Amino acid sequence: VKTAPTATLLLYGPDRKGLVAGVSRFLLEHEANIIHADQHTDREEGLFLQRVEFEMDGMDLAPEEVGGAFAPLAEDLGMRWVLRMASQRRRAAILVSRQAHCLIDLLARWKMRELDMEIPIVVSNHPDHADVAGYFGVEFRHLAVTPETRPAQEELLREELSAQRVDLVVLARYMQVLSSGLVEAYPNQIINIHHSFLPAFVGARPYEQAHERGVKVIGATAHYVTADLDAGPIIEQDVVRVSHRDTVEDMVRKGRDLEKTVLARAVRLHLDDRVLVYGNKTVVFD
Amino acid sequence: VKTAPTATLLLYGPDRKGLVAGVSRFLLEHEANIIHADQHTDREEGLFLQRVEFEMDGMDLAPEEVGGAFAPLAEDLGMRWVLRMASQRRRAAILVSRQAHCLIDLLARWKMRELDMEIPIVVSNHPDHADVAGYFGVEFRHLAVTPETRPAQEELLREELSAQRVDLVVLARYMQVLSSGLVEAYPNQIINIHHSFLPAFVGARPYEQAHERGVKVIGATAHYVTADLDAGPIIEQDVVRVSHRDTVEDMVRKGRDLEKTVLARAVRLHLDDRVLVYGNKTVVFD
Amino acid sequence: VKTAPTATLLLYGPDRKGLVAGVSRFLLEHEANIIHADQHTDREEGLFLQRVEFEMDGMDLAPEEVGGAFAPLAEDLGMRWVLRMASQRRRAAILVSRQAHCLIDLLARWKMRELDMEIPIVVSNHPDHADVAGYFGVEFRHLAVTPETRPAQEELLREELSAQRVDLVVLARYMQVLSSGLVEAYPNQIINIHHSFLPAFVGARPYEQAHERGVKVIGATAHYVTADLDAGPIIEQDVVRVSHRDTVEDMVRKGRDLEKTVLARAVRLHLDDRVLVYGNKTVVFD
Amino acid sequence: VKTAPTATLLLYGPDRKGLVAGVSRFLLEHEANIIHADQHTDREEGLFLQRVEFEMDGMDLAPEEVGGAFAPLAEDLGMRWVLRMASQRRRAAILVSRQAHCLIDLLARWKMRELDMEIPIVVSNHPDHADVAGYFGVEFRHLAVTPETRPAQEELLREELSAQRVDLVVLARYMQVLSSGLVEAYPNQIINIHHSFLPAFVGARPYEQAHERGVKVIGATAHYVTADLDAGPIIEQDVVRVSHRDTVEDMVRKGRDLEKTVLARAVRLHLDDRVLVYGNKTVVFD
Repeated sequence: VKTAPTATLLLYGPDRKGLVAGVSRFLLEHEANIIHADQHTDREEGLFLQRVEFEMDGMDLAPEEVGGAFAPLAEDLGMRWVLRMASQRRRAAILVSRQAHCLIDLLARWKMRELDMEIPIVVSNHPDHADVAGYFGVEFRHLAVTPETRPAQEELLREELSAQRVDLVVLARYMQVLSSGLVEAYPNQIINIHHSFLPAFVGARPYEQAHERGVKVIGATAHYVTADLDAGPIIEQDVVRVSHRDTVEDMVRKGRDLEKTVLARAVRLHLDDRVLVYGNKTVVFD
Repeated sequence: VKTAPTATLLLYGPDRKGLVAGVSRFLLEHEANIIHADQHTDREEGLFLQRVEFEMDGMDLAPEEVGGAFAPLAEDLGMRWVLRMASQRRRAAILVSRQAHCLIDLLARWKMRELDMEIPIVVSNHPDHADVAGYFGVEFRHLAVTPETRPAQEELLREELSAQRVDLVVLARYMQVLSSGLVEAYPNQIINIHHSFLPAFVGARPYEQAHERGVKVIGATAHYVTADLDAGPIIEQDVVRVSHRDTVEDMVRKGRDLEKTVLARAVRLHLDDRVLVYGNKTVVFD
Repeated sequence: VKTAPTATLLLYGPDRKGLVAGVSRFLLEHEANIIHADQHTDREEGLFLQRVEFEMDGMDLAPEEVGGAFAPLAEDLGMRWVLRMASQRRRAAILVSRQAHCLIDLLARWKMRELDMEIPIVVSNHPDHADVAGYFGVEFRHLAVTPETRPAQEELLREELSAQRVDLVVLARYMQVLSSGLVEAYPNQIINIHHSFLPAFVGARPYEQAHERGVKVIGATAHYVTADLDAGPIIEQDVVRVSHRDTVEDMVRKGRDLEKTVLARAVRLHLDDRVLVYGNKTVVFD
Repeated sequence: VKTAPTATLLLYGPDRKGLVAGVSRFLLEHEANIIHADQHTDREEGLFLQRVEFEMDGMDLAPEEVGGAFAPLAEDLGMRWVLRMASQRRRAAILVSRQAHCLIDLLARWKMRELDMEIPIVVSNHPDHADVAGYFGVEFRHLAVTPETRPAQEELLREELSAQRVDLVVLARYMQVLSSGLVEAYPNQIINIHHSFLPAFVGARPYEQAHERGVKVIGATAHYVTADLDAGPIIEQDVVRVSHRDTVEDMVRKGRDLEKTVLARAVRLHLDDRVLVYGNKTVVFD
């Protein structure tokens, strides 16, 4: 039951004395109330990373003025930063292919208000799931694709994302590779669910590979998409035990449960501004 | 490889603006370098709780002066606090009865430098484990007990703990109930491992109870000891799956693994000053 | 890709020599092919329990004759038994109150053919979820209830279950207590999801209780419903870690995920005839 | 509390009708009492695999006659098989290098009678752990090795294993690669613990690799050693969550706990004759 308007500040830069004090003093001077603060120091990289969530009620700055007031301090401290008002809800597009389990799961969570975002559009390269989207009251766009039409289809996709002013793209088992141009247009804003415990079983058919190898545990990985396929910063992973009793089909079924859960957790962490990306890694302030 | 002298401050009190800023400004002014800071707000209780770990190198206060300098600020902010230098290693007594698995596990971890403490004494109401203690180079004291001699035995125990200047007592499957007098003499300094997932299966023979009930998961709980048996603040819990294939003996064996791991984690969290007790609950800053 | 008609035999009785040989010889003589066989001996109770799944192709008995042919042997061996053809799909009613997460999850899995059953009816004491049922093509019946109308409402419910020839009732967060008469009419055919790790936190508001107690792990339990509330034979349990960072609301959200997963697993195990109930316990042949 | 002499039969071969009946009839005819029977069908390979544990009390065959009596039936059914009397305790050598955590863990479990085997010898390429072995009453042999002396050292090792009539070799963090000749002399009798979730992070320094990649879960793998390093049949795996808060050192520490547990479970499964190897995979009858 949060009612007061809140904001979240994610910041990082070279570690040095006075960073915590500097940021908290800034917020104190402007009468903000810190609700949560978490920080991490990467000693190898000499980096300090922080997440601060604060209430703006009673501040002597209007929400739109906070960033401008903070900028000089951040420059002074050599920090990169992102400020986001909780009232700015993200606008997410969900992309899906044939398998609907992640799509249905996300939409059901969204309807139960677990995921605080708007979903202006569901896009698929297949027409199958128009009814699911419709049931949850979300617009559906079918963008068919063949090897020949791929560039044209992606162009339509980009226009759609742009027209809908999307700032989050969730690949909910979308089986098309995005071009590096599209990926770069949405840095750390595209979340993919990989049906494997990366870095094992990279690529297609991981459950068949896992079955063949006789592993006793399978996993799933949610990560930001970068130009380097399946190698982007990992947001969340989880695993489930399997045994010789599990056929490939059983693994696929267990994997679906993992994929749903891991993707939903990653999206939620992103929406709550809990994920800070640096280099090819993440700090997840949970 | 921390080499600089560090200290940890645990503090809590009524939530209000400026707490983070106040503490961090104090440390900044005295030239401390904050390595880790974590905080939590219990909204229902209106409480703010914080853990700050900082390096003292370059501070304008000697280690023994930091507390005195901080006290007025804490009083001002209405906070209760504990300050501990990493160089003050705790002195722990391990109490054990017949079952040695937790004792051996703790001693082996201690020998591998996983647990940063001194162990001046192992006490048991049975003579069996003198050799284990001896192997690890720890003094062993056998304090036999019968229903009639219980008060006298506990008096000897208290003298031993006092003589050894112990500030942590680990009940590593010690099957004697401590008197409330002894418990109160070591507030939040006695850690017990309960061989059950509290609050289920309180009391003796939990594995038999679990087997009888046909549960599919069993657990273990490490908690601080309070006068109310098995109801003290929980530090750590974990579980393991069981099935109809597991006999009571199998559950006992799986339980032993859980007990070892959960107790060792709790002791480690305590040694790192990561556990803040308030009311009958803990905040574990992990 | 099972195509041959298969059947499953669940049986148990006093342990004695020759049980495995007797059953397997019977199947061999009638030219059945055993696909899976699993057995368990409860030594304390002196009971032998077995599950045998076999293909009927090539048998010298028609499916409807197998039971009759097996009966004399079972009587001879003193075994209680159930025989079920895979072709007899169960007819399940799903009962739900305000919270829809388990309902949606079950329907979505059913639609993806994870759950091999028919769902002739969804019944609720609230009108809210008619649209979900409709989306998945399942009939919805609203049976409002007040303390005064409870017996009458349950009578309508019984008529509906009977009219639909239901042989499985799934309580998907149905917040009404069933009368013992209804429970006894569907022995080991009513599955409930309890939003707690039984036997801890029996009763209502378990997440509040868990939060209050400061536990580090919460759980959910799927069990058959018996006259003794929350004490029926446990089919499946699972847990998830929580910390001081989790509010009651967070626990409720994490609990929803658990409830969905645990209930779906229990239903699936039941549909596959993998659960054998004896006394107040289960053997789950997984 | 097993007191009657028992035996375990592991067998596998091409799937066909009558296998279960054939084996169970054989045991019935010779008045054995089946305690546990478990079977698995690998449909892709068309293989049937079974484990049968039975009491020999009252059999009309002496223990040393059972194998001879069973052989013709097995030949008839085209099955490969191993028969082992529970009274034939295995003789295990434990090989270790600098890190002692797995060694201590195995010895402590062995002393508590969790692991039903004899340990005639501990061998190490370092002299460090003579005292641990001595404390547990096990002979210790130091076989120093340099790149130049490796063949000679392994020859001494082979002689030692042979002289001690060892039929199980446990590599408890033994950091030397065994020659293919030695590996082949002990087929499916050498168990290694790999400090990684295979097939991810093959090779040395897996925790550094995992930390670098920013994974959220790390694992450990126990497997039989084959000529192809780190690619042998997997017996057991498990995982633990990690986060950005975990340094490489923390991962190593968490990994040690995993390694101990996973290796001990694998050894126990092997000792109970629960692991059937076929191709490069295992069936673990747990």
